[in-house]
Amino acid sequence: MKNRLDLIYEAASRLFINKGFARTQVRDIAREIGLSTGMIYQYFSGKKDILSFILKEAVNPGFFDHERQFPVTSGASGIFDHLEEEIKATFEKNQQDFDTHLKDQAADYSLEEMLSDAFDVIANYAVSCLIIEHNEADLPELAHYYRDYRKRFFAQVQQYVDLYIEKNEFRKVENTFYTTRAIVESLAWWGMHVRYDAFETETDISPEKAKEVCLDLLLHAYQA
Amino acid sequence: MKNRLDLIYEAASRLFINKGFARTQVRDIAREIGLSTGMIYQYFSGKKDILSFILKEAVNPGFFDHERQFPVTSGASGIFDHLEEEIKATFEKNQQDFDTHLKDQAADYSLEEMLSDAFDVIANYAVSCLIIEHNEADLPELAHYYRDYRKRFFAQVQQYVDLYIEKNEFRKVENTFYTTRAIVESLAWWGMHVRYDAFETETDISPEKAKEVCLDLLLHAYQA
Repeated sequence: MKNRLDLIYEAASRLFINKGFARTQVRDIAREIGLSTGMIYQYFSGKKDILSFILKEAVNPGFFDHERQFPVTSGASGIFDHLEEEIKATFEKNQQDFDTHLKDQAADYSLEEMLSDAFDVIANYAVSCLIIEHNEADLPELAHYYRDYRKRFFAQVQQYVDLYIEKNEFRKVENTFYTTRAIVESLAWWGMHVRYDAFETETDISPEKAKEVCLDLLLHAYQA
Repeated sequence: MKNRLDLIYEAASRLFINKGFARTQVRDIAREIGLSTGMIYQYFSGKKDILSFILKEAVNPGFFDHERQFPVTSGASGIFDHLEEEIKATFEKNQQDFDTHLKDQAADYSLEEMLSDAFDVIANYAVSCLIIEHNEADLPELAHYYRDYRKRFFAQVQQYVDLYIEKNEFRKVENTFYTTRAIVESLAWWGMHVRYDAFETETDISPEKAKEVCLDLLLHAYQA
């Protein structure tokens, strides 16, 4: 991405997550970056295009490095025509990858590797996920898909937990449902919320550091 | 509290937290409970009074069991005249209590007791805290106080962590700042968010159960 696009991406993401898409105006994004509203309109025809741009970057990183047609306009260019399907396909792919080691009972797959991959599944798409979570009314289809996607992810993690308990890699816990909830929510907090929408955000914590703290917590808590 | 007041309390809390005070109308609260808007106005003169009622219940539980003057009207009755000061005083008292065992280096105070008390500090005032967090623009003074209050609570927990490490009750961790963050945020998630504003809320999990899951996670993660 170009530098100004980076700035627009970052400011708009934070606004769409914390203030909400409906209440964010293009001038809010401009003010956040210290650009004029007119300058933003040289890049995007409206805030809907900025939202599409952010979601597109998640499924197609670097797409806009090669996009030369500014301002970006959904209808005209057709680049966002199948965006929701692309997002779903990307999420499905992730979930299939994460499913791989369930098929062979996690034969060569440690609890640590599983937690690390689960963290990445969450952290790599943090911005898109949080935008969907905070804007269900404006993204009804995606939000509906996402609620289901989260349920399936939860079920995958719970299956891994059950497997690791059987293999004595995970300490016996009373209730794997709540343990899975503790795992998934800790991963979500350190993978997404800490940087974007916690009450005290830490915008400069690296994903690596966040992962380290989170895995240190979870491995010590549950590894047998 | 009377039954209808309970219903208003519960519905209005959830709306003020998730939709926000500014965007919640009295008719939204009525619709949520299945009462007419007129019926709500028999109890409260407006949504500001409902907000005050919820915050008052936090600092003065059962206050409205004895309140016979309906509809509740801020100006007329004077019952909410010093509400913000009362809230601050209650929070200060809590924080002083939680500070007690720092003075004697947590001589007779185990890590488990500390975590249990820290959970209660958070969970007992979950509704008020979340209403403040989600409505900073409408409660600017309280929000300002609350941000500072959270910083001090964080500092207290970090001091306890440092103490327990010295006493070999807590395993050596690389960075007590991030460890404290992991503790405070886990407490906050299980003490407040799970029931009110997580992406998947569990309205029926008891505070006892939530505390059990949370302390099981934290004790196994950090106890030496």
